[in-house]
Amino acid sequence: MRSYAILGTGAIGSFCAVLLHHAGLEVHCLLGRDYKHVNSQGLTLIKKEGKLTASIQAYDDVQKMPKCDVVVVALKTTMNEKLKSWLPHLMKENSTVLVLQNGIGVEEELSSFVSSEQIVGGACGLIVNKRGVGLFEHVSMNEIEFSQYYTDPKKKGVTQRVKEVAADFSKAGVEAILEEHLWSVRWKKVIRNFPSNGLSVVLGASYAEMTGNPMSFDLLCRMTQEMILAAKKAGADISEDFYEERVGQFESFKELEGSYPSTKVDFDAKRPLELQAIFENPVKIAHRYKASVPFMEMLYAELVFLNEKNLLR
Amino acid sequence: MRSYAILGTGAIGSFCAVLLHHAGLEVHCLLGRDYKHVNSQGLTLIKKEGKLTASIQAYDDVQKMPKCDVVVVALKTTMNEKLKSWLPHLMKENSTVLVLQNGIGVEEELSSFVSSEQIVGGACGLIVNKRGVGLFEHVSMNEIEFSQYYTDPKKKGVTQRVKEVAADFSKAGVEAILEEHLWSVRWKKVIRNFPSNGLSVVLGASYAEMTGNPMSFDLLCRMTQEMILAAKKAGADISEDFYEERVGQFESFKELEGSYPSTKVDFDAKRPLELQAIFENPVKIAHRYKASVPFMEMLYAELVFLNEKNLLR
Repeated sequence: MRSYAILGTGAIGSFCAVLLHHAGLEVHCLLGRDYKHVNSQGLTLIKKEGKLTASIQAYDDVQKMPKCDVVVVALKTTMNEKLKSWLPHLMKENSTVLVLQNGIGVEEELSSFVSSEQIVGGACGLIVNKRGVGLFEHVSMNEIEFSQYYTDPKKKGVTQRVKEVAADFSKAGVEAILEEHLWSVRWKKVIRNFPSNGLSVVLGASYAEMTGNPMSFDLLCRMTQEMILAAKKAGADISEDFYEERVGQFESFKELEGSYPSTKVDFDAKRPLELQAIFENPVKIAHRYKASVPFMEMLYAELVFLNEKNLLR
Repeated sequence: MRSYAILGTGAIGSFCAVLLHHAGLEVHCLLGRDYKHVNSQGLTLIKKEGKLTASIQAYDDVQKMPKCDVVVVALKTTMNEKLKSWLPHLMKENSTVLVLQNGIGVEEELSSFVSSEQIVGGACGLIVNKRGVGLFEHVSMNEIEFSQYYTDPKKKGVTQRVKEVAADFSKAGVEAILEEHLWSVRWKKVIRNFPSNGLSVVLGASYAEMTGNPMSFDLLCRMTQEMILAAKKAGADISEDFYEERVGQFESFKELEGSYPSTKVDFDAKRPLELQAIFENPVKIAHRYKASVPFMEMLYAELVFLNEKNLLR
């Protein structure tokens, strides 16, 4: 029976905490502002079938948490500087670090102070929204792709470690998918996030607004194409039908009235944007592999400007 | 002694009207909302040397205006659909139409109903601000480049017609420059306008803010380079030092605290943006000459979206 430490109890972290706890695993959560409430009332997840409340172990300080078999990193990437001091305290000699964050390049950074074999990446296909203090709603989708991190982005292969973590999530009711190439998983996820998350901030627009206007719809499509070419140059496997699938998703976004990407939600809440992981790193990697990415460059530059101005106000 | 009809009494039209009137020319102005005031009080231009008031002939209806030797088009380009009915009423057989508008492609459109020999283009290097009803201030710069329009963008040459109009403006105290290639004049002007006017809307930023941030400064420079290549492909003469000069101007914009491009002023006033002349036409011409212009395309798409949303509110 593996023990889990969960860093970050936003939508993704709380979703994992409640489900893993109900699957019988030992779950320890680091909390911020919501610590007092969650310590006494637990975390609650609203699902279609009803409410699940989990009396997880809550902590307001990493130093009080025990060492665990798996440390789940579900923080905003803007807080990742903390990991250098937090992880050594939470990890046993052979613990697994499971990174459930958006963007690309986070595992590479971690590997400067955690052995790469111990790093597993997960890409979430989940829509979970916060509804109150310690209260979350699972809106739709229910999958996480798990994959081993390798320092060489060309290297592939599912490890025993990945299988074990995925098995826990599977037991918890999540559709856990084993993937052999984290680099491809990360690129596909960031191709989904970069254009729509970025443009929603620049245009002050919802999914429905962005995709409802033919000019911005076209821009989303062309930026997606640019990123697919960059990802392929960088060695990611992107299937032939990936682009058409994505265009189909943009079509379906036309119905997502009043729904905004996480980057726009952060922007409106005056939180620092996850610029490095979601935007800067993909541009830098594209440059490293000599891909021409003017749309990405321009959107990234616009976001740097808007983020700075937004935090000043 | 030539007579002038002036269409559009915003900053540029009013500046011309006051100075031409004071040079002894006959000046007839079409006015909108400010008609009553200007009809009784005239137009006033504040200059460094003092105030100049001109009791020009004011009209609230084109049908009441006489035919004139020169018709000055100083409207926002978004009103150009009116010209098809207005110009025939104001022109004698050999009248000159002087286009003092931003953007590119306006003369081409006019030439579908005005003989091309009769069309002269002018590019203004002028900063004039509206200070009240019928009241304008000449802030800085004092030049207009005059050039003959030819349907073939490769054709060059100063005509007698251009010399005559320029002579009137010179007499009125404007630094009137004769240029032999309108196509180059228009491209250079639009290279100056497109990046900064467009980005100021997308970033909600002043000249000083856009140029004060290294990422947006770099974007302005790179978009300028892209446009210079497109202009050259399209047959415009752009001197070797044009780019460095422009970068120098961007540097000087860092001091323009609180100053905004005209497109941003229009946006904030909820007026329709001059999208076609300043943004759409340059992109289309670049495509016609097979230039790769992703920065221009992306900025244009963003502006189409923002303009639509802005006018809905």
